[in-house]
Amino acid sequence: MDSSDRPQGARAPALGFTSDNIAGASPEVVEAIAASSAGQASPYGADDLTARVERKLSEIFEREVDVFLVPTGTAANALCLSAMTPPWGNIYCHPASHINNDECGAPASFTNGAKLVAVDGQFARMSPASLRSAARVKVGDVHSTQPSCASITQATEEGGVYTLDEIGALAEVCKASSIKLHMDGSRFANALVSLGCSPAEMTWKAGVDALSFGATKNGVFAAEAIVLFDASLAPEMGYRRKRAGHLFSKMRFLSAQIDAYLSDDLWLRNARQANDAAQRLSRGLAGLGGLGGVEVLGATEANIVFCRLPATAIQALLQAGFGFYHDRWEQNVVRFVTSFSTTIEDVDNLLAHVTRAVVAHQSGNR
Amino acid sequence: MDSSDRPQGARAPALGFTSDNIAGASPEVVEAIAASSAGQASPYGADDLTARVERKLSEIFEREVDVFLVPTGTAANALCLSAMTPPWGNIYCHPASHINNDECGAPASFTNGAKLVAVDGQFARMSPASLRSAARVKVGDVHSTQPSCASITQATEEGGVYTLDEIGALAEVCKASSIKLHMDGSRFANALVSLGCSPAEMTWKAGVDALSFGATKNGVFAAEAIVLFDASLAPEMGYRRKRAGHLFSKMRFLSAQIDAYLSDDLWLRNARQANDAAQRLSRGLAGLGGLGGVEVLGATEANIVFCRLPATAIQALLQAGFGFYHDRWEQNVVRFVTSFSTTIEDVDNLLAHVTRAVVAHQSGNR
Amino acid sequence: MDSSDRPQGARAPALGFTSDNIAGASPEVVEAIAASSAGQASPYGADDLTARVERKLSEIFEREVDVFLVPTGTAANALCLSAMTPPWGNIYCHPASHINNDECGAPASFTNGAKLVAVDGQFARMSPASLRSAARVKVGDVHSTQPSCASITQATEEGGVYTLDEIGALAEVCKASSIKLHMDGSRFANALVSLGCSPAEMTWKAGVDALSFGATKNGVFAAEAIVLFDASLAPEMGYRRKRAGHLFSKMRFLSAQIDAYLSDDLWLRNARQANDAAQRLSRGLAGLGGLGGVEVLGATEANIVFCRLPATAIQALLQAGFGFYHDRWEQNVVRFVTSFSTTIEDVDNLLAHVTRAVVAHQSGNR
Amino acid sequence: MDSSDRPQGARAPALGFTSDNIAGASPEVVEAIAASSAGQASPYGADDLTARVERKLSEIFEREVDVFLVPTGTAANALCLSAMTPPWGNIYCHPASHINNDECGAPASFTNGAKLVAVDGQFARMSPASLRSAARVKVGDVHSTQPSCASITQATEEGGVYTLDEIGALAEVCKASSIKLHMDGSRFANALVSLGCSPAEMTWKAGVDALSFGATKNGVFAAEAIVLFDASLAPEMGYRRKRAGHLFSKMRFLSAQIDAYLSDDLWLRNARQANDAAQRLSRGLAGLGGLGGVEVLGATEANIVFCRLPATAIQALLQAGFGFYHDRWEQNVVRFVTSFSTTIEDVDNLLAHVTRAVVAHQSGNR
Repeated sequence: MDSSDRPQGARAPALGFTSDNIAGASPEVVEAIAASSAGQASPYGADDLTARVERKLSEIFEREVDVFLVPTGTAANALCLSAMTPPWGNIYCHPASHINNDECGAPASFTNGAKLVAVDGQFARMSPASLRSAARVKVGDVHSTQPSCASITQATEEGGVYTLDEIGALAEVCKASSIKLHMDGSRFANALVSLGCSPAEMTWKAGVDALSFGATKNGVFAAEAIVLFDASLAPEMGYRRKRAGHLFSKMRFLSAQIDAYLSDDLWLRNARQANDAAQRLSRGLAGLGGLGGVEVLGATEANIVFCRLPATAIQALLQAGFGFYHDRWEQNVVRFVTSFSTTIEDVDNLLAHVTRAVVAHQSGNR
Repeated sequence: MDSSDRPQGARAPALGFTSDNIAGASPEVVEAIAASSAGQASPYGADDLTARVERKLSEIFEREVDVFLVPTGTAANALCLSAMTPPWGNIYCHPASHINNDECGAPASFTNGAKLVAVDGQFARMSPASLRSAARVKVGDVHSTQPSCASITQATEEGGVYTLDEIGALAEVCKASSIKLHMDGSRFANALVSLGCSPAEMTWKAGVDALSFGATKNGVFAAEAIVLFDASLAPEMGYRRKRAGHLFSKMRFLSAQIDAYLSDDLWLRNARQANDAAQRLSRGLAGLGGLGGVEVLGATEANIVFCRLPATAIQALLQAGFGFYHDRWEQNVVRFVTSFSTTIEDVDNLLAHVTRAVVAHQSGNR
Repeated sequence: MDSSDRPQGARAPALGFTSDNIAGASPEVVEAIAASSAGQASPYGADDLTARVERKLSEIFEREVDVFLVPTGTAANALCLSAMTPPWGNIYCHPASHINNDECGAPASFTNGAKLVAVDGQFARMSPASLRSAARVKVGDVHSTQPSCASITQATEEGGVYTLDEIGALAEVCKASSIKLHMDGSRFANALVSLGCSPAEMTWKAGVDALSFGATKNGVFAAEAIVLFDASLAPEMGYRRKRAGHLFSKMRFLSAQIDAYLSDDLWLRNARQANDAAQRLSRGLAGLGGLGGVEVLGATEANIVFCRLPATAIQALLQAGFGFYHDRWEQNVVRFVTSFSTTIEDVDNLLAHVTRAVVAHQSGNR
Repeated sequence: MDSSDRPQGARAPALGFTSDNIAGASPEVVEAIAASSAGQASPYGADDLTARVERKLSEIFEREVDVFLVPTGTAANALCLSAMTPPWGNIYCHPASHINNDECGAPASFTNGAKLVAVDGQFARMSPASLRSAARVKVGDVHSTQPSCASITQATEEGGVYTLDEIGALAEVCKASSIKLHMDGSRFANALVSLGCSPAEMTWKAGVDALSFGATKNGVFAAEAIVLFDASLAPEMGYRRKRAGHLFSKMRFLSAQIDAYLSDDLWLRNARQANDAAQRLSRGLAGLGGLGGVEVLGATEANIVFCRLPATAIQALLQAGFGFYHDRWEQNVVRFVTSFSTTIEDVDNLLAHVTRAVVAHQSGNR
C-alpha cells in the first residue's frame, strides 16, 4: 500500500506491533485530563474526581474495594506484593511472568527481599499442581523462605487467558496453603472481554485478593489502580505508596485518566478493538499456513499473536519498517501486539506485507 | 467581594493557599499532552520528545547533564539520594526539610537504611558551620553511619532562598568532607527567578552534584527531572528508576509536560507569577502591621508567606472558605502559598478578607 | 604501686577502664563451654542445653517467655526492633542511645528503613512527656513515618538506671499510643542489682514487650538473649534471626555460656562486683573534690562513672597506661567503666594514680 | 555392637550422620578459648590474637588478604555477596546451593534484593557453559536484573569437589562477563585435602575474588573468616559487618578459635579425618552392592556420602538410633555426613548396622 493510495486526511497504517505501550491515549482520556487541569483541587487524592473513581471501581467490582492509583504497572505489582509477603516469603509466579523478567527486581526491592519462585505451566499459565507442590516445600523451616503469595498475569505474557476455573483452582491451592493470590492485570480488560465474564467473576469471586488493574496499555497515558479485595491489605498501602514516591500530589490527573477510562465502557471498547485486531491478524496469518513457514502458535485469546515466520520474511518486514519482537523466545518466532488504536487497515497492511514476504520467500526457496 | 460583583465570565477568586500543589496545569502543558497522545512512539524514553527534553535541559544548564524523568518529587529526591550514599551513610539535611518530614521515610527506603541527620540553620537553611561539624563526627568509625551526602531545598520549605554564596559555602564543606551535594529543587524555578541568576550558577557552578528539578508545583501535572551533574551517578540510575516502578512505558507523556514547561520560558513566567503574588501578599500583610496582631515572618523570597495573625482572624478566614495551614509551626502562625495560577485578584481578595478580619478582631478587643 | 610490691602470683592491676567489653569471661563460662564441646548435639537450638536455657529464663522472669539466643547486642537490639515496627515506623530513643550512635545503622537495616527519632531526657533517660509529644506527631498522616515502638537502655549509656516507676511511666505512654516498648539490656544485670528488684518487675511487669538480655559485657564471651514478653513477636523471629545469619548451627555453644551465666547467680555476682567497683571508684573520686578540678558527674548507679578531671591529670593517667574515654562528651570529661573482673586493687590503683596526678596538677597550678 | 563389648572408658560409637554441624569442637580449640578468656584485650578486633589470625591467613594464602571474622557461614556468605552485587544484580548459583536453599533468603536480605539465578550443572557443580549463557541474558537492559557475581560451593552440597580446572573455567567466564566470583568454603578444608592442592591454588590463583572460609563444621564452635582477595571489596566490609550485628566486641573469642584451627595443621588433620571416614563408609557401602538395593551415588570426594538403601533398611537404621537425612532428594536416597570427630569405630558400627539391615531386607524379600 502506498501513501498515495490513501484517502485525503487518513493516516498511514501504523507499523508498530512491538507492544501495546507504543500507542498513545484515547481522545476521551486526553479530554478528561484537559478538563481536570483547571481550578484548584485538594491534593494527594482528597479530591472529588478521585472519590468518583473509587466509587466507580466499587461498582464495577460489585463490592467495596480499596483503591490506590499509581502511575505504572511495575509500581502496582510491587506494591501489591509488598503487602502480601514478609521479606522471607516466596512469591510464586510463572517463569515467563513480567514480575520475574521485566521489572528489574522491583518485587524483591519493595518486599525487602522476598523470593520469586518460578512455578511452571503451559502457555505462561501457572499449573495448580505445580503450585501445590511448590507451596509445600519446607513449610515452617527457618532455613527456608516461606510460602506467602502467588501472582498470575491476566491476560498472560503469551497472550493467553486464564479461564475462571483455572483461576479458581489456583485460588483454592492458595487458600489451602494459607497464601494470598495476586493478579497482574496489566491487560485486565483484554482478558475480560475475551472471557466475556464480569470483573467480579474474574477476580474476588474466583479468589483473587489483590489486583493490579491495568489501564496504561489500553488507552490511558500512565495510570493503574491497585484494587484490594482483601481489606486487611489496605491500611498499610497508603504508607507503602507514599514511601515509594508513588503518591501524586495532583492526584486528579491520575483519577481523570481512570475516570474517563471507566466511562461509557471506554476500557471495554478499547480492549475489544485490540482483541479484534489480534483475532483478525491471527486468522490472516493462519490462512497463510498453506504457503509454508507460517504458523500461528498457541491460541490468540487477547491482543497478542505469536507465530513462526520464515527468516527472510522477518527481515523483509523489518526492512519495510514494521516493529515487533522476533527470535527472542525461539528462532523465527515473532510476537505481534495490537492495541486499542490498531485499526483494520493496520492489520491488513501488515498481513499484506507478510503475504508478500512469504511468497517471495517461497519463490526464493524454489 | 460577592460573586455578583464579578464581570461576566470571570472566575471567582481562588481561595486555596495551602500549597502550590492544589493548582492544576498550564494550558500549554495540557496542549502538549494532547499533542503527544496521537500516533506511536517508542516506549521507556526512546522517543523523540524525551530526547528533546534531555537536549533542552543540557542547554538550560549550559553543559551535558544526565536526565531521568519521574512523576513525583519524592521519587526524584529518593532516587538521587540513593545514588549518593551507601546504606550506612548519613544524609545531612535541615530539620525542616521535606525529605525529613514529608516523604514517609522514602530516602531511608530507597537507600536501604541511610540516616537522615538533621543539621540546623536559620530559616530552614542548613548552616555551613553546622554541616562541617556534623560531617566530622566519627568518620571512619565502623560503629557509626558515615558522612555521605547533604541535601538542601531550593527554595526552602520556609519560603527562603539560598544565595549563590550560601550554596557555594555548603558545597565547599561537602567537597572538603568528600560528600556529595543534592538539591531538592521542588521550587527550583521560584528560587531561580528570585535570585535572578542562571540555572548553571544555582547548581553545578556552585557545587551541586544532583538536582531534583521540580515542575509539578509550577504548572505541570506530575513530572520532575532528575538532573545529574556528577556523571558517575548516572549509570546505575536507570536500574534504580525502573526497580522503583518509576520508568514510564509511555514516557512521552512525562516528556511532553517538561517540554512545554521549558518552552517559551513558561517555567520562568509561571514562577514569576507565583513569586509576584507572594510579594504582593507579603507587602499587603506587612501593611496591616499597624492594626496589631499581624506580622510577616521571615523574608518572602519565593512563593511562600509566613505570618502571624490573630486567632479570631484565622477563624474568620477559614469560615470564609480560605484554605491554608495554621498553628502547625507555632500558634497563630499561618502559611500562605501562591502558585503560577494565583492572580492579583486572588491575592487582593485574600488581603481584603484578612483586613476585614483583623479590623473585626481589633474592634472585638476594644 | 610497683609490680615488686605485689604478692607472688598476683596479677598486676588492670589498667583498662574503656568499657566492660575489654574483659574476658568468667571461669564458670569457660568451663561450661569446654563441657559442651564433646559429643554430638542436634544443631540450630534443638539441643538439651538450649532447652534448659529457655526454661531458666522463663523461671527467672516468672512466666513463659520466648527466647532467641544471638551473639551480639547489636543483633539482639536490631532483631527485636525489626519485629516491632514496619519500615515506615518511628523508633523513639534517647539521643545518647547505643542504637542511635553505635550500631552503624543496624536498626534501620534490620527494619528496612524505620526511623530513629530522638526523644530527649536527662541523664540519657527518655522523658515520658517528651515521648508522649513525639508519639502524637502526624499520626495517621501518610506523609510521615508513624509511631511504632520505643527503646530504652537499662542501665543507660550514662551509667544511670531507670527506676521501676520511670519504666512504668514510659510504658504507659507506649500503651496509650499503641506502640511497643523495647529494653536494651546490654547491662541488664547491672541495673537489676542496682535497683534490687526482680527481673519480672524490671521488664514485663513494668510494661516492657521485648528485651535484649545482655550477657557479653558481664562475663560471657559473646552471647545475648532476645527475650520476648509479647508472644505475638515470636513466630517471625526465627526467620528473622536465620535470615540475618544469627542462627548458630552449634547453638549449644551460645547456650552453654548463658546456662553458666544464669547458674548459681553468676550473672548477679558479676554485676555486683562491677557495680561495687564503680561505687568505690565514684566515692574515691568524690573524695578528691577538695583538691579542685575533680567532679563526679551524675549518679553512679551501675558500673559507669563519669567525672571531670584536670587536663594534665588526664594526660598523666594516659601516660601511666590507663585506658578510658575522655573529651568525647565534653572537654575534660572522662568515663571509667568497671566490669565483673575489676578488683578492689584495680580501683585503688586507679584512684592512687588519679590522686597523684591531681595533686601534681595542683602544684603546677600554684 | 553392645555397650558391654566396649573397652572400659571408650565412648559408645556416635550415631549421628545428619551433618558435620552436630559435632562439638576440637580440644585444641577449647583450650585456645580458655586461654583467651583471661585479662583485658582491646575490643572489636583491635587485639593481638586477631592480628595474628590475619597474619596467618595471609601466610596460608601466600599473599595479603583482608580478613573479617564472623560467627556463621550464612553471615560470611551473605556479607561477601552484599559486597559483590548491587540490589539489582544477579547472583548465579547452583540450584542445590546452600545460599539458594538454606539461608532463608539471607543473600537477598543483605544485598537489599539481589536475585539468586539458578545455573545448573551435574553434581551440584555449576557448568561454565550454563553460566556463560546466563550471564549474557539482557545485559544492560534496565528492565532486567544484571549479572553481578557467581557463587560456588567448595566442597559442594552433594559432597563433590570442583577441580582447579573447573574453578578456573568458571572464573574465566566471570572475568569475561565482568562479574565477581565467590566461593562458599563451608567445607573448604575438606575440599582442599581432597584435591591435595594449596589454598592459594584453590582460590585466588584460580580466580576467586572472595571466600567464606569455613571452620565451624570442621572443629571450631562458631567461627568463619571472610577472606577477600579483591581488595576493592574490603573498605566497606567493616561497616557491613557491624551493621549486620556480626562485629564481636570480644573478638578475641572468634580469633582464638581460628588461631587454634590454623595451628599445627589442625584444620587439615580434622578435614582428613572426616574425609577418610567418608571414604571408608563409601567403600564399605559399595561393597554391599552385591546384596541388592544398596548403591553409592556420585563420587565421595569430601565428607559426604550419598547412597540408595532399601526402605526397610532405612527404617531399621533409624530405629537403631542413627541420625541421617533420607528421602529428601529422592526416594530411598540417604545422606551420611562424617566430621572431624567421626572415628573408624563410628563408621564400622554404621556399616555393621547397614549390612545387618540389608541382609534382613533381602531375607524379607525372598
